[in-house]
Amino acid sequence: AYSTEEERGARAVSRYPVPNKKDLPYDIVELMEEVEVKTGFLPNVFKAMSHRPAEFRAFFAYYNAIMNKDTGRLTKADKELIIVATSAVNRCLYCVIAHGAVHRIYTKQPALADQVAVNWKLADLSDRDRAMLKFALAVCQADNITEEHFQELEKHGFDREDAWDIGMIAAFFAMSNRIAHYTDLRPNKEFYTMGRT
Amino acid sequence: AYSTEEERGARAVSRYPVPNKKDLPYDIVELMEEVEVKTGFLPNVFKAMSHRPAEFRAFFAYYNAIMNKDTGRLTKADKELIIVATSAVNRCLYCVIAHGAVHRIYTKQPALADQVAVNWKLADLSDRDRAMLKFALAVCQADNITEEHFQELEKHGFDREDAWDIGMIAAFFAMSNRIAHYTDLRPNKEFYTMGRT
Amino acid sequence: AYSTEEERGARAVSRYPVPNKKDLPYDIVELMEEVEVKTGFLPNVFKAMSHRPAEFRAFFAYYNAIMNKDTGRLTKADKELIIVATSAVNRCLYCVIAHGAVHRIYTKQPALADQVAVNWKLADLSDRDRAMLKFALAVCQADNITEEHFQELEKHGFDREDAWDIGMIAAFFAMSNRIAHYTDLRPNKEFYTMGRT
Amino acid sequence: AYSTEEERGARAVSRYPVPNKKDLPYDIVELMEEVEVKTGFLPNVFKAMSHRPAEFRAFFAYYNAIMNKDTGRLTKADKELIIVATSAVNRCLYCVIAHGAVHRIYTKQPALADQVAVNWKLADLSDRDRAMLKFALAVCQADNITEEHFQELEKHGFDREDAWDIGMIAAFFAMSNRIAHYTDLRPNKEFYTMGRT
Amino acid sequence: AYSTEEERGARAVSRYPVPNKKDLPYDIVELMEEVEVKTGFLPNVFKAMSHRPAEFRAFFAYYNAIMNKDTGRLTKADKELIIVATSAVNRCLYCVIAHGAVHRIYTKQPALADQVAVNWKLADLSDRDRAMLKFALAVCQADNITEEHFQELEKHGFDREDAWDIGMIAAFFAMSNRIAHYTDLRPNKEFYTMGRT
Amino acid sequence: AYSTEEERGARAVSRYPVPNKKDLPYDIVELMEEVEVKTGFLPNVFKAMSHRPAEFRAFFAYYNAIMNKDTGRLTKADKELIIVATSAVNRCLYCVIAHGAVHRIYTKQPALADQVAVNWKLADLSDRDRAMLKFALAVCQADNITEEHFQELEKHGFDREDAWDIGMIAAFFAMSNRIAHYTDLRPNKEFYTMGRT
Repeated sequence: AYSTEEERGARAVSRYPVPNKKDLPYDIVELMEEVEVKTGFLPNVFKAMSHRPAEFRAFFAYYNAIMNKDTGRLTKADKELIIVATSAVNRCLYCVIAHGAVHRIYTKQPALADQVAVNWKLADLSDRDRAMLKFALAVCQADNITEEHFQELEKHGFDREDAWDIGMIAAFFAMSNRIAHYTDLRPNKEFYTMGRT
Repeated sequence: AYSTEEERGARAVSRYPVPNKKDLPYDIVELMEEVEVKTGFLPNVFKAMSHRPAEFRAFFAYYNAIMNKDTGRLTKADKELIIVATSAVNRCLYCVIAHGAVHRIYTKQPALADQVAVNWKLADLSDRDRAMLKFALAVCQADNITEEHFQELEKHGFDREDAWDIGMIAAFFAMSNRIAHYTDLRPNKEFYTMGRT
Repeated sequence: AYSTEEERGARAVSRYPVPNKKDLPYDIVELMEEVEVKTGFLPNVFKAMSHRPAEFRAFFAYYNAIMNKDTGRLTKADKELIIVATSAVNRCLYCVIAHGAVHRIYTKQPALADQVAVNWKLADLSDRDRAMLKFALAVCQADNITEEHFQELEKHGFDREDAWDIGMIAAFFAMSNRIAHYTDLRPNKEFYTMGRT
Repeated sequence: AYSTEEERGARAVSRYPVPNKKDLPYDIVELMEEVEVKTGFLPNVFKAMSHRPAEFRAFFAYYNAIMNKDTGRLTKADKELIIVATSAVNRCLYCVIAHGAVHRIYTKQPALADQVAVNWKLADLSDRDRAMLKFALAVCQADNITEEHFQELEKHGFDREDAWDIGMIAAFFAMSNRIAHYTDLRPNKEFYTMGRT
Repeated sequence: AYSTEEERGARAVSRYPVPNKKDLPYDIVELMEEVEVKTGFLPNVFKAMSHRPAEFRAFFAYYNAIMNKDTGRLTKADKELIIVATSAVNRCLYCVIAHGAVHRIYTKQPALADQVAVNWKLADLSDRDRAMLKFALAVCQADNITEEHFQELEKHGFDREDAWDIGMIAAFFAMSNRIAHYTDLRPNKEFYTMGRT
Repeated sequence: AYSTEEERGARAVSRYPVPNKKDLPYDIVELMEEVEVKTGFLPNVFKAMSHRPAEFRAFFAYYNAIMNKDTGRLTKADKELIIVATSAVNRCLYCVIAHGAVHRIYTKQPALADQVAVNWKLADLSDRDRAMLKFALAVCQADNITEEHFQELEKHGFDREDAWDIGMIAAFFAMSNRIAHYTDLRPNKEFYTMGRT
């Protein structure tokens, strides 16, 4: 049931076994079906995490608490941009490809996520977006975060609660990128082309 | 209410405001009181995270799912050792000091966590523990994780489910270390001396 | 005539002035028109380099000598893959985006160049392609190249002349990536979507 | 007589043979006994270095010239702090543990050396101490030392002779850390608990 | 005909076969003879590149276009200094030794190239030369090049066309250094002593 | 009396004041005169260190104990090679230039020290010398030194006492390089040309 790199040609969703829906707890199936309806397909991170139902619940509850909260100045597109930029540092194939696709969907901009994946400093971003990514990347790299970091954000209209939001997304994906690495999580093929035209 | 580094002399628990207990939701107070009874004091991570009740719940539910699960070959001491070793890489003051203390409590060994904090390769560890930390550090550093990584673990009796456990703890603390950095989370003074005699 | 980053919104082809066709030597115009017919648009590297006609000639003559030679085991797709992988290390926006597009055109594979741009070790590549990229990346990083490097290539059917070809492409794009950086060369928007469907 | 890592369970003082006192020159025994009386035990660095009597004499004469000189603004606690901070960079188990202990004895502060060992920028230090450590770490890392480095020190009351003192201690422990690495010098167990209560 | 490192004692010009003059195209022989007359010996880079006549022509045409152009503020000595400084970063034995020699010939300064090879920041250079090398090294390291880089050059009298010249030499030798690595190009023994007295 | 970088044109021996001989203790003058007779000039390290007579004595006593000892398999040329290779890593201008010169004097080989200064792996060295430098560089970089390091040396005829000698020289020059950095110690001009013809 565990996949190995030998089989890379027809590479699985994850290195770990993915349970059949019928063997999964009802709440997990319910969440999966809701996502599948909304997205048009089930992103592989749901399949991979279902190998551990308790951790599945914890992971997506946390994700929901930070990605779907209503407060703060970060737009949905901002959040996806933070994920692409920080996941590129960690060379996380799943997160760069999947969240790049979601960013294209939200923004209707076909090129920006690709630019950020290669070199965020050369991307066609506003100064506000650059300040946001700079903070996110400092958190991503586990830098010491100082008053100067917060003051730079404030110059671009982000208060300390926004800083927390940026930092928490960067921190959560520091975790997600590493889970993707040890599970060898593979992006669904749909993500590569989503939102490109 | 936000603290700054100017005040470092009498440095706060966190850079973010810590609510009074009376202003916190009941379930959070309940968890805090339970921990305080068990530990003898309330670790600052609970205070700092209570600034965001929804994220407090998500964080500790996740923590609980991976640190207090009953299955697998990792002992409580193993888990603390993984946290100390990976948090040292990220220079996370809170996690190295707090989890070093918990490791001393579990193991009755006063020196091992300090050794791992300085240089895990020179610490008085068994080959099994070394293999465990090597995998944890590969995840911590966002390395590509290959079949060879799993095979090395297997030589020391860790199967793929144990690998997930090691990887998930390393990944979760990759997140925690970064939250500690942006909140400037300070260790309780009790941790420095706990379990030393 | 020199562009600055202030104008990033409507960012130019290059930081340096791009001459009008009518002011360019005939041989350069001729080459440009030939490329434009073949590609459907004129890639910006031709415009940017035309700022220096003598260097334009030298650059494209060199490019032609290594990219369009008939001998050796490297396919056109192999060469593009080497460029994407090494340019990703140098975070060269132009080369990753433009040569990723050309790779998609040659291979009809919509995902591979994106994978290599993010993390070549996780890309769906054959062992032969991995060996080729490993050598290219060693050259890219200015590593000392030893007999072991050549022997690894030989295991996958590349002889020493193929090694030269791989090394020379990696070396030439070590130059190109740096020219792109100091000229602030921007990819044509066409490249982002080419070969995706 | 040479120890190996196989025996790590009951790990020796050093990888090199430690002579019996009766086989050592009189002046070395005399120094050892003086230190043992003062400290309450004989730190392992004395045992390890006695393997080479001529180098023992040179090492401790040098140590004495810089650590016990009466001039300059550096206190004994300052010197120990420099050693802990620079040895942490070199991941020198012996020096971080032993000099952390001595720092606790001099300062009666149980937490500061542990903080500096994990992350000196997060330690509860005065601006003066931070400036001192910043200079020491620049020397430790073999940075080019410029006028700006000296001017920053001057702002905190350190003149150029103090700079020499800081630099020389950082340089001497650059040597000591490396000797500890190749001899596999182990801290006496007493150091771990000294000055903690 | 391919040399290996086994034979390092009497190490060849290059790892690749060097053709006999009689087997080379006439234009290549002609260029070689012209250089040999001028220099007093034939630098090994000509021998090594003659293994690939088409690439030989492209390489030296490019070299000529940037090193022997008449325009711009860079002197011949400036260009050699850029080559020594950037090749030292890439640890390119051939380029540091050969172009250090040429620098000595042009400048009559026996020590400067050696200083730059070891540590350019400690070399006896003017502020203008330092600014020039700083830009060259930013290009060499594939840094993002920003407006600030150009403005720093302008303070020392270099306009944007001079910046292109500096950048292009740094970029061309980024290529040359890597070719030298994979061909194992060895400096002629004459270079070590040229211009020293 | 303190020199600054402003005066770089006619740069002093050291950033710190150099006493007149008449103000120095007799033993220091005596040692200086002995060295001057032997070398033909007084190397600047003696002048720079005389700013601190007690440290002068300690430094040269230590130097003497390790560089002029009669036992062990390291030749005088071996020791100089170790100094050049490790000082190149630390970019120590004084030590690379001065000890490169001494190496040329001992070996009559005009090129080897220059090769090692640029890239020791490409230098014309025996396998024995490579093994020696590899160990020295591991110590220089403050790597953890393991049994494998000693076993590799043993394959080339170096026992554990030779390993100590190699390690101690690397460690002592880790200190010397850093002293040279903070004192801005400049090589005597004689060193650049010594032993070249």
